[in-house]
Amino acid sequence: MSNQYLDPNLKVFSLNSNRDLAQEIASVIGVELGKCSVQRFSDGEIQINIEESIRGCDVYVIQSTSSPVNEHLMELLIMIDALKRASAKTINIVMPYYGYARQDRKARAREPITAKLAANLLETAGATRVITLDLHAPQIQGFFDIPIDHLMGVPILSEYFKKKAMDGDVVIVSPDHGGVTRARKMAERLKAPIAIIDKRRPKPNVAEVMNIVGNIDGKVAILIDDIIDTAGTITLAANALMENGASEVYACCTHPVLSGPAIERIQNSNIKELVVTNSIALPEEKKIDKIVELSVAPLIGEAIIRVHEEQSVSTLFD
Amino acid sequence: MSNQYLDPNLKVFSLNSNRDLAQEIASVIGVELGKCSVQRFSDGEIQINIEESIRGCDVYVIQSTSSPVNEHLMELLIMIDALKRASAKTINIVMPYYGYARQDRKARAREPITAKLAANLLETAGATRVITLDLHAPQIQGFFDIPIDHLMGVPILSEYFKKKAMDGDVVIVSPDHGGVTRARKMAERLKAPIAIIDKRRPKPNVAEVMNIVGNIDGKVAILIDDIIDTAGTITLAANALMENGASEVYACCTHPVLSGPAIERIQNSNIKELVVTNSIALPEEKKIDKIVELSVAPLIGEAIIRVHEEQSVSTLFD
Amino acid sequence: MSNQYLDPNLKVFSLNSNRDLAQEIASVIGVELGKCSVQRFSDGEIQINIEESIRGCDVYVIQSTSSPVNEHLMELLIMIDALKRASAKTINIVMPYYGYARQDRKARAREPITAKLAANLLETAGATRVITLDLHAPQIQGFFDIPIDHLMGVPILSEYFKKKAMDGDVVIVSPDHGGVTRARKMAERLKAPIAIIDKRRPKPNVAEVMNIVGNIDGKVAILIDDIIDTAGTITLAANALMENGASEVYACCTHPVLSGPAIERIQNSNIKELVVTNSIALPEEKKIDKIVELSVAPLIGEAIIRVHEEQSVSTLFD
Amino acid sequence: MSNQYLDPNLKVFSLNSNRDLAQEIASVIGVELGKCSVQRFSDGEIQINIEESIRGCDVYVIQSTSSPVNEHLMELLIMIDALKRASAKTINIVMPYYGYARQDRKARAREPITAKLAANLLETAGATRVITLDLHAPQIQGFFDIPIDHLMGVPILSEYFKKKAMDGDVVIVSPDHGGVTRARKMAERLKAPIAIIDKRRPKPNVAEVMNIVGNIDGKVAILIDDIIDTAGTITLAANALMENGASEVYACCTHPVLSGPAIERIQNSNIKELVVTNSIALPEEKKIDKIVELSVAPLIGEAIIRVHEEQSVSTLFD
Amino acid sequence: MSNQYLDPNLKVFSLNSNRDLAQEIASVIGVELGKCSVQRFSDGEIQINIEESIRGCDVYVIQSTSSPVNEHLMELLIMIDALKRASAKTINIVMPYYGYARQDRKARAREPITAKLAANLLETAGATRVITLDLHAPQIQGFFDIPIDHLMGVPILSEYFKKKAMDGDVVIVSPDHGGVTRARKMAERLKAPIAIIDKRRPKPNVAEVMNIVGNIDGKVAILIDDIIDTAGTITLAANALMENGASEVYACCTHPVLSGPAIERIQNSNIKELVVTNSIALPEEKKIDKIVELSVAPLIGEAIIRVHEEQSVSTLFD
Amino acid sequence: MSNQYLDPNLKVFSLNSNRDLAQEIASVIGVELGKCSVQRFSDGEIQINIEESIRGCDVYVIQSTSSPVNEHLMELLIMIDALKRASAKTINIVMPYYGYARQDRKARAREPITAKLAANLLETAGATRVITLDLHAPQIQGFFDIPIDHLMGVPILSEYFKKKAMDGDVVIVSPDHGGVTRARKMAERLKAPIAIIDKRRPKPNVAEVMNIVGNIDGKVAILIDDIIDTAGTITLAANALMENGASEVYACCTHPVLSGPAIERIQNSNIKELVVTNSIALPEEKKIDKIVELSVAPLIGEAIIRVHEEQSVSTLFD
Repeated sequence: MSNQYLDPNLKVFSLNSNRDLAQEIASVIGVELGKCSVQRFSDGEIQINIEESIRGCDVYVIQSTSSPVNEHLMELLIMIDALKRASAKTINIVMPYYGYARQDRKARAREPITAKLAANLLETAGATRVITLDLHAPQIQGFFDIPIDHLMGVPILSEYFKKKAMDGDVVIVSPDHGGVTRARKMAERLKAPIAIIDKRRPKPNVAEVMNIVGNIDGKVAILIDDIIDTAGTITLAANALMENGASEVYACCTHPVLSGPAIERIQNSNIKELVVTNSIALPEEKKIDKIVELSVAPLIGEAIIRVHEEQSVSTLFD
Repeated sequence: MSNQYLDPNLKVFSLNSNRDLAQEIASVIGVELGKCSVQRFSDGEIQINIEESIRGCDVYVIQSTSSPVNEHLMELLIMIDALKRASAKTINIVMPYYGYARQDRKARAREPITAKLAANLLETAGATRVITLDLHAPQIQGFFDIPIDHLMGVPILSEYFKKKAMDGDVVIVSPDHGGVTRARKMAERLKAPIAIIDKRRPKPNVAEVMNIVGNIDGKVAILIDDIIDTAGTITLAANALMENGASEVYACCTHPVLSGPAIERIQNSNIKELVVTNSIALPEEKKIDKIVELSVAPLIGEAIIRVHEEQSVSTLFD
Repeated sequence: MSNQYLDPNLKVFSLNSNRDLAQEIASVIGVELGKCSVQRFSDGEIQINIEESIRGCDVYVIQSTSSPVNEHLMELLIMIDALKRASAKTINIVMPYYGYARQDRKARAREPITAKLAANLLETAGATRVITLDLHAPQIQGFFDIPIDHLMGVPILSEYFKKKAMDGDVVIVSPDHGGVTRARKMAERLKAPIAIIDKRRPKPNVAEVMNIVGNIDGKVAILIDDIIDTAGTITLAANALMENGASEVYACCTHPVLSGPAIERIQNSNIKELVVTNSIALPEEKKIDKIVELSVAPLIGEAIIRVHEEQSVSTLFD
Repeated sequence: MSNQYLDPNLKVFSLNSNRDLAQEIASVIGVELGKCSVQRFSDGEIQINIEESIRGCDVYVIQSTSSPVNEHLMELLIMIDALKRASAKTINIVMPYYGYARQDRKARAREPITAKLAANLLETAGATRVITLDLHAPQIQGFFDIPIDHLMGVPILSEYFKKKAMDGDVVIVSPDHGGVTRARKMAERLKAPIAIIDKRRPKPNVAEVMNIVGNIDGKVAILIDDIIDTAGTITLAANALMENGASEVYACCTHPVLSGPAIERIQNSNIKELVVTNSIALPEEKKIDKIVELSVAPLIGEAIIRVHEEQSVSTLFD
Repeated sequence: MSNQYLDPNLKVFSLNSNRDLAQEIASVIGVELGKCSVQRFSDGEIQINIEESIRGCDVYVIQSTSSPVNEHLMELLIMIDALKRASAKTINIVMPYYGYARQDRKARAREPITAKLAANLLETAGATRVITLDLHAPQIQGFFDIPIDHLMGVPILSEYFKKKAMDGDVVIVSPDHGGVTRARKMAERLKAPIAIIDKRRPKPNVAEVMNIVGNIDGKVAILIDDIIDTAGTITLAANALMENGASEVYACCTHPVLSGPAIERIQNSNIKELVVTNSIALPEEKKIDKIVELSVAPLIGEAIIRVHEEQSVSTLFD
Repeated sequence: MSNQYLDPNLKVFSLNSNRDLAQEIASVIGVELGKCSVQRFSDGEIQINIEESIRGCDVYVIQSTSSPVNEHLMELLIMIDALKRASAKTINIVMPYYGYARQDRKARAREPITAKLAANLLETAGATRVITLDLHAPQIQGFFDIPIDHLMGVPILSEYFKKKAMDGDVVIVSPDHGGVTRARKMAERLKAPIAIIDKRRPKPNVAEVMNIVGNIDGKVAILIDDIIDTAGTITLAANALMENGASEVYACCTHPVLSGPAIERIQNSNIKELVVTNSIALPEEKKIDKIVELSVAPLIGEAIIRVHEEQSVSTLFD
């Protein structure tokens, strides 16, 4: 390691969700990952062994609660319990991807608000700070009463498209009604107009149509979302854009959940390139050619250093 | 009172924010408002006297935290404290308008999340349930760990426009990027398309323009928002719609905050009619001809009865 | 259903861990299981839909946190959150098997106490009571500050052996040092002596031996444990008993975890019969001939009725 | 600033109740006030912008919850929320005047205990320490579970009268039954006797009389109270003292609330001079000639330094 | 028992501090005391056996935390824990005497506030309501966040003196500066004037003198206090009153702690009669002729019935 | 003091249970005990005066909750409250003996779990860490959510026997079923076999017999327990061992409660020597010749230093 961080009280641990990213973050900071094994007993119970003293240390635990979300969340809760009982000074949870974020309100009767439940569980276990990235709804910040540092992935994605030579005028497209603000933010960085996919059913018993609100004719469309899960919405949107006159279609998101039929759909879609971050680890079989992965390790590593040295984190985004 | 509610353990109290609505809700239920004075000492401290025993009762307190928000919020907190110490069985807070709801996330460094703070204060004081209407962000439901019944105002507003004879095709317009989902909901009820006002600055040092995304030409535009505060956005939007070919412009919202220059702006705007609910009490001087006020008392009264009788509230919206 | 429970406020729901047992408990009580689906989204997140109103009801949720423990525990936590927000009057968690119970203390430096963490998580989510069976350590009762009804499986197991014709004098054997008290309890019910397997290493670098403390010569040995997991200890013990003169060996436990090589080991061991309860659901492939399954549904059903009717539960064991 | 405090982690912020005092305290310590704006949105909601990083700092917030008490209390709560979320190390609330302190018990049925509510709200928001002055009842210290440093104003007031040439023997007078202990404390410092005003109604339907218990004949009377609000009691007491033979009457208090008719009553009374502290900011129109204002800034500034440097605060009063 | 209370869910238990009073309260209500033994193991640890089911009951536990205060407080806390775990519906603590009430503020540096600590301990253990009598400071009500019913002993004491034929005009005397408000309350009921004992040291190194503020000459003086502990103050006051011209001296208090030399001092003093309540049990050796004991059982019994039947308790004092 | 600890922020205070041990621990560390008086008012209430500033310090309070347990526990709770209010940085409770540890579960209906209650009370009062020794059940660690350092006494006891010349082969004996694991641990250190006393009643109405499971013939038996209270079990066990052929019998325990008839029983028993630690102070009259007392001060002192210097405590046992 060329750079080496001097304060031995800063400890970074990785659990199982995203070890490559954790390793990269540790390198950015200039520390070795803390020694710790996270395994399963024969019956599936999680067994955590922290193999070095962390008494009095500021500990940062890197764990996205990506799939398998319940396993990864329980790993995190158990690790927090172990750190608390082992007398860590502060327990800082670094969740590049916050699972269950879409269950953030009661949309129907008798639904849970699992994103709030997860926040309560983390605080109960003993977390003292959360560092996270592009929450599905920014209001999730308020689900916590401990400090939360909320990092932004849009600048990283925007920077990529800025540097890329594009063949024609660009329009930023939100694939649904809820994401227009996000599209507007990227549009500002790229000095481009916006459009919205307005999926609706014209009459009962008639198929939904992908109506496009805004002008995309002859333009390079960039679809942006925070999370791409099964990729149904985004690929239908891409097809609708091409059918309605877009010259080509890119897509991007911060969190590539890419579950179920996602990879196949993307492969078969009109999307020319899908740009994502490594907030969620992609297994090898999902790393198809169309997907470009950008690293958030420099951003998170710098944030950890600033938190540890009690400097402003907000200036990271000026 | 023609109908009379039989269970004497259901008590409804009104504080100072919206006594007319409270009286109307009590009539819907079939109870007298509980006896209680809420006054100020000479130095401005709040003095609450509950003038009947509420020991063992299920108490519903009607209070919008509308302007003056801090006075109204403190009245509510002090009332809850008094009820708790006087052995109320349950303390159900009915907030048709939830003040500070727009401070629901840290948009910039070192901002408070006052909407969460308010939730914490209400729970600490001793509230056991919240009944509210059209929260600015539905995620605010997750700011509470007590049960919350979230009522919807959009059906009431939609019903009004459905019954009104409109001169031409209708388009529902969101005045900003954040409100597109709300516009979509009303559009579904009215079977109309949507459009969005996309306010942006084309170049640095050039005035913002009100770009319209979607087709409004020759149509009757209905602008919808949850809150209209200073009315700057909505009136600029109305003017832009008329300039871009709308035949006429209506506006509606659940919560008529209408502060500062709002009334003058609306008076002088192209808005033909502004439809609001009485979730916030309008003083006489704000009741101009252009404003139509719809009552939420039947909705809230019915919800209180269902909560008290342990019936489903969600079926109110089926 | 022949018997039918009259109070509609008693609701029993089953999650995914042990639906057969839940169905059987519901039949004992005389109710239908509550309508509720517990599924997975494409990315593995849990989706719970409670499909009937439970406002004001006393709800009993049947869920063993057996393997996959993290999935089952998260199902339970999310269900509790949903019930709390849907205004259940009381949320009673029925956990015939309490997962992570063996992680009940720090045996080494920096270990978590996951059994306590689980208790904290359940209380934070909103559970108001726990009904459980044969906790690995009875002290786990003290991990909770809500009431806990702790049922006993030993009487059911003992009753089975009492009724069974045994070929000779019986000795009850604890397979390790920690289980002697449990062996003593069964011995009292069967009026038999006890013995203990004292596994130890005579010298460094010499294999462990299964030393038997107590007299087993010519006797029918019944090994008893609370949990049988990989079945290593119990099958080695059985073999040692046979080698040291026991006439035949039975084994029994309340919680048949039976993970990894357990079934194969049991099949190949000297154990004549393994008697277990259905606190953990056995998949078909584990239901080998040697295993006898006794139902705890009558016990749990009766306990739920008594809790609901505010009668003493302790008299169940007189 | 001549003296300059060296540790940059000590930050002092002022809210809106008493900026002059805050500035004076900052000067005593040797720091600039922290950069922060506290304004109102058009609808009256409080908007706080903390304009410098306070990550890891020990922050002291100066705010009396004087009139308008609800505005000032909400400013304080929102500031605490913002500081907590911005990762302040400690949040020390400096309340020279603690509003609602007189609502410290249930004197009648169904009254709130608003002084306790305020304490709970401050702790819930995230305060970690309170520094205050002459609480109306010292038991309010016990309303908090965080450390509280309780400063005394009586020495400052006593010192003033000690240095003043008085024309004759002095008697310290309590204006009511509840303040005798306070009068006794000042009497000890001035080595003077005490008297008490015993307001009572001799018979039903007869006017209350101001009976004087103790000897005041020919003496200079000094009335002392902690709070002077509408000044009714104190001015009636002064008149009664003069009528009963006192040679002249002074009055003093720590907290000059002076609401409603207070200034006019004092102006028209027999009180020769009213001595107060600047714990509550007096607007210009209340600064009449009869009122002498003593500063508590040196006392509070010294207390903050000692708290920050972990020295004993109690020795301030030896 | 002539009267018999019908609701079997009201249960009254007595611990060890004041079994006679508990028995009397139970008779007033019309119930048998709950079956429960409270003993000591050989090493002094408390052993509580609740010998009847209290599942779902409203339990009232009678226990003054009188001497030995730590034993009695721990008995109460352990009983609450047992009741909570045994599924009591509500746990109502009836403390006729609240021990440690005089440690209600920090009078000097680094003192505990033990009265608040006791309140916190009771709430943590699981108490849901407190019924108590004449708290040393009424602010102690605010130490609790659960409902507290605060009963008054002064009416009982006043009634006694009203009915007693007194030989001459009466004056009510407070033995110190802190008790003047209490004396004033009794004075109002007896339509008598007040006086105050003003103990002070005229010069350094000179003995304290008992100065009397107010006119007592030729009058029957009634000294009133809430607590009489070692009886030093009250007996010195009585002697001073006689020396200064009182015709005779009575004394009264709600809580007869009477520790150390108290009985001897009272016996040897000028006090003609000391009137107390049975909030604290007097052992036989303290029941000297001068002491008259009035029962608070009718008051407390009536309060319990009203609490249980959800009627106003405040009207007890109208 | 030869060694002197340099950091003045480490403060050690002793309460009344075991001042000799506290003094010895202070010497091991190299500090003077903090100045503090712990006395009783005349009525038995505890009065604590901390006579030096502890603002910002790491405070360690030495107190076994040995007999009189309620007095010692309340001393500890009140001390914690005083330290918290006096702004201690951390409050570390050193309890060599944890009273009420045997009430760690509900063994019968409606029992309290007093060991958990004590943990809750300590956390509520404000303790931030516990250091303790040989908890009766290791699960009590999980009763706390603050860090707990659990020290072991078995190595000290084992070391003593290792160094002692023993006349023959040794067998380690558990006096009951619950202590076999403890016996096994000592057996490993002494490389000896184990035996168990199996107390049982062969038939109804027949006296209990002390059956011995395991081979003790001709061996030196060492009985080990964690707590010896009334010494009934241990002395009966010793007699049974001698009657069954043991050559001689030693006994040892960490915590010598030795209440009631214990000393007389030990004196009259076959036990040759009883080895204990000074976790509980023995009064002079209990220090009979048969009892050997080993000091835990070096162990606890070293643990405090490691905690304070943020070094691993677990390595103490490697």
